[in-house]
Amino acid sequence: MNPKTRKERFVVVGGCAAGMSAASKAKRLNPKLDVLVFEKTPHVSYSACGIPYFIADLVRDASELVTLTPEDFRVQRGIDVCTRHEVVGIKPVQRLVTVVDLETRKEVCVGYEKLVISVGGRPSRPALPGMDLKNVFTIQTLEDGIHIKQFIDENHPGQVVIVGGGYIAMEMAEACCVRGLDVIILEKRAQILDGFETDIVEQVAAELKANKVTVETSVVIERLHGNSSGKVTSVAFDDKSVQAELVLVCAGLRPSTQLAAEAGVRTGNSGAIAVDWKLQTNVSNIYAAGDCVEVRNHVSGKPDYIPLGPTANKQGRVVGENVGGGTAKFPGVVGTSVFKTFGLAVARTGLECERARSLGFDADVVTVDAPARAGYFSRQQKIRVSVIFDKRSRRLLGAQIVGPDGVSKRIDIFAAALTNRMTLNQMAYLDLSYAPPFAPVWDPVLVAVNVARGKLR
Amino acid sequence: MNPKTRKERFVVVGGCAAGMSAASKAKRLNPKLDVLVFEKTPHVSYSACGIPYFIADLVRDASELVTLTPEDFRVQRGIDVCTRHEVVGIKPVQRLVTVVDLETRKEVCVGYEKLVISVGGRPSRPALPGMDLKNVFTIQTLEDGIHIKQFIDENHPGQVVIVGGGYIAMEMAEACCVRGLDVIILEKRAQILDGFETDIVEQVAAELKANKVTVETSVVIERLHGNSSGKVTSVAFDDKSVQAELVLVCAGLRPSTQLAAEAGVRTGNSGAIAVDWKLQTNVSNIYAAGDCVEVRNHVSGKPDYIPLGPTANKQGRVVGENVGGGTAKFPGVVGTSVFKTFGLAVARTGLECERARSLGFDADVVTVDAPARAGYFSRQQKIRVSVIFDKRSRRLLGAQIVGPDGVSKRIDIFAAALTNRMTLNQMAYLDLSYAPPFAPVWDPVLVAVNVARGKLR
Repeated sequence: MNPKTRKERFVVVGGCAAGMSAASKAKRLNPKLDVLVFEKTPHVSYSACGIPYFIADLVRDASELVTLTPEDFRVQRGIDVCTRHEVVGIKPVQRLVTVVDLETRKEVCVGYEKLVISVGGRPSRPALPGMDLKNVFTIQTLEDGIHIKQFIDENHPGQVVIVGGGYIAMEMAEACCVRGLDVIILEKRAQILDGFETDIVEQVAAELKANKVTVETSVVIERLHGNSSGKVTSVAFDDKSVQAELVLVCAGLRPSTQLAAEAGVRTGNSGAIAVDWKLQTNVSNIYAAGDCVEVRNHVSGKPDYIPLGPTANKQGRVVGENVGGGTAKFPGVVGTSVFKTFGLAVARTGLECERARSLGFDADVVTVDAPARAGYFSRQQKIRVSVIFDKRSRRLLGAQIVGPDGVSKRIDIFAAALTNRMTLNQMAYLDLSYAPPFAPVWDPVLVAVNVARGKLR
Repeated sequence: MNPKTRKERFVVVGGCAAGMSAASKAKRLNPKLDVLVFEKTPHVSYSACGIPYFIADLVRDASELVTLTPEDFRVQRGIDVCTRHEVVGIKPVQRLVTVVDLETRKEVCVGYEKLVISVGGRPSRPALPGMDLKNVFTIQTLEDGIHIKQFIDENHPGQVVIVGGGYIAMEMAEACCVRGLDVIILEKRAQILDGFETDIVEQVAAELKANKVTVETSVVIERLHGNSSGKVTSVAFDDKSVQAELVLVCAGLRPSTQLAAEAGVRTGNSGAIAVDWKLQTNVSNIYAAGDCVEVRNHVSGKPDYIPLGPTANKQGRVVGENVGGGTAKFPGVVGTSVFKTFGLAVARTGLECERARSLGFDADVVTVDAPARAGYFSRQQKIRVSVIFDKRSRRLLGAQIVGPDGVSKRIDIFAAALTNRMTLNQMAYLDLSYAPPFAPVWDPVLVAVNVARGKLR
């Protein structure tokens, strides 16, 4: 096809959060655009963050996690989606992608005017003997979730070993408990939840223990053992061995950059794809968005790798605006996240104290336990708030909250404060909402900030 | 006593939130200070905002609303508290207050070096025939709450008329329903909830209706009728008359300024006591805090009268710091509040659209209904968010939220944004927390902000 006679084409490489947001926004802004999405898995536009709730069976059917099907995109939005198609090469000079149909193994070349790399990340897999045994899963795509749930449904395993102690491990621990499995978490570091303050981790560890989840820390896994049918049976670490009918590897995510690198797209110090404010890469007409790119951390002022769904969605929209004829900039993040494990919500934003120090801040942290509602409403139910701050400038650097309730949107108050580079003094009298059923007269946010100020006197 | 031989004395006139915060903070900073509190009611340091929950019997005993008793203040904090003592005059030149013991009617003069006027407000009482009948109550002090609850406990009234349709009326409507009363709200304006956008009021009105609360608007009450024992029996308005065994007058609060005015303390345009950043009045050594003072509204940049508990507590602390030898400034408010009525939380911050226009802003408002959690968690449960903004500068001017859950701390995100005078563009990609049990990937806050931005294109 002659590019001059056909419509301008926007090729989206990877159809999860970032890719589909970019596709939708670009098409909405410029309906004449030919938008073509290639996705190697069978699904696009699903909530990856919902997978633990699907496995726990709180969400019955995988289709509930899917916002729109490829057919929906075609019919409702005029976007062409090719699932089970993998882009294996990008030729920036010719503006061509090489695509393999994973069903037929046929390869085709497709031209583009604009392209976004939104291929996401891939789960880290420790290089251990036995990692290729059956019933050893990573958790990333909806397919992974479907396979894990199917395995639990059909085999009713008694024990799961979770490798890694980050937030997905915490969510999966609860999901597996709900499904009746005994859960063992193996964490290589001295404590679970890397990036969280010890005061916060302590409460999560207690909650796991109260729910009979075994946590082993400072673990060096030696290998996974299997039986004659190739199914995993146990995990060996240090001098021990634990039974495992199911192994979930939750050892973090790495940005998928190979395709980009081969096309000459530069990665940054974080190892993820480097982009400018408009999310353009160093290669003309190639954008990148989502779990494969690095973001500007507004608190540190440096590029960072923080792969999360809301960022992917926002970046997708920014790319879509820029491709669709508008102008949008992605301002970066402050590092906000929240997860639930059993009866606790656990949230963070900004920098943890140790990281802040390593970046040159004169950082300190204070932790308070404060009621989340009026005393006569809370029945002594408290939440724990840690505030990280710079002692010289008194600037807020981060905050973390753990508790049974009232955590998620309280962390967002700190996120808004970080976005505005507020000092503790500027935060001390923030006009926050109060009514006995929802908050105490001094919100825990203000209690923590004022304790931190007291420490600076 | 010769002032030169005795300790420096800080006299606190009024022992509710502001006064007791001031007393406690000043004494903590300067333990040598002689802190003396005069309070005309029998109670100090109680949660006035808890009264509706006490009347509803969710809080069984009035003592649960009391944080510290006068004895506690004496023993634990070294602060002298004289309840049932009313300050009836202040002589600034001599630095003396005239105090009446309400039990004995005896009058004494007491010297001070510093003084804070924290006498609060008084409920508006429409001048209507029959307002002095029995069982017609205003709701302000803990005594009021105790009397109302006692009346309900002992007389089991069948019907209550609530005069006024503000947030206390909404809280009391629920409380009375919980106690089995039929509730009629009579509001003089064309809609209840002055200061709230119509889109928000609509949902509250529907909730009241669903709970069988009758709301009459644009009502002109003519008089209250009573029986031969002087008890209220009905309320006459327009051409109607409704039975009422109990009448609650929730017609707003006015600042108590008479004592201040007589001492030469200036009031501002709002009618409340004018103070500087340190909460000093125009008269040397006299501070003012709480429901009797006006505050700087950070959004309008003008003095405002917004009597609320958190402000009183913060102002008390600021006065206490300044009296205790420190230096503190009260930065003002953005006008944040929240209340609960039946199954709804209703929150606001900043300016409503109409008020913003009257202040000269080129204001507009958008309203969105958006899920408060991930779709597969929320079961279609949505919250409604209104965003008020200036069309010229794109600055956020206010926000209001109503919904069953996830309202109170979401409004605080807007409050933090208002404090920092953020524009809609600056808010568009705020890094807010996300996990399916707590929020959707695009938080309703961001959905509303982005719809508002869309309207500006």
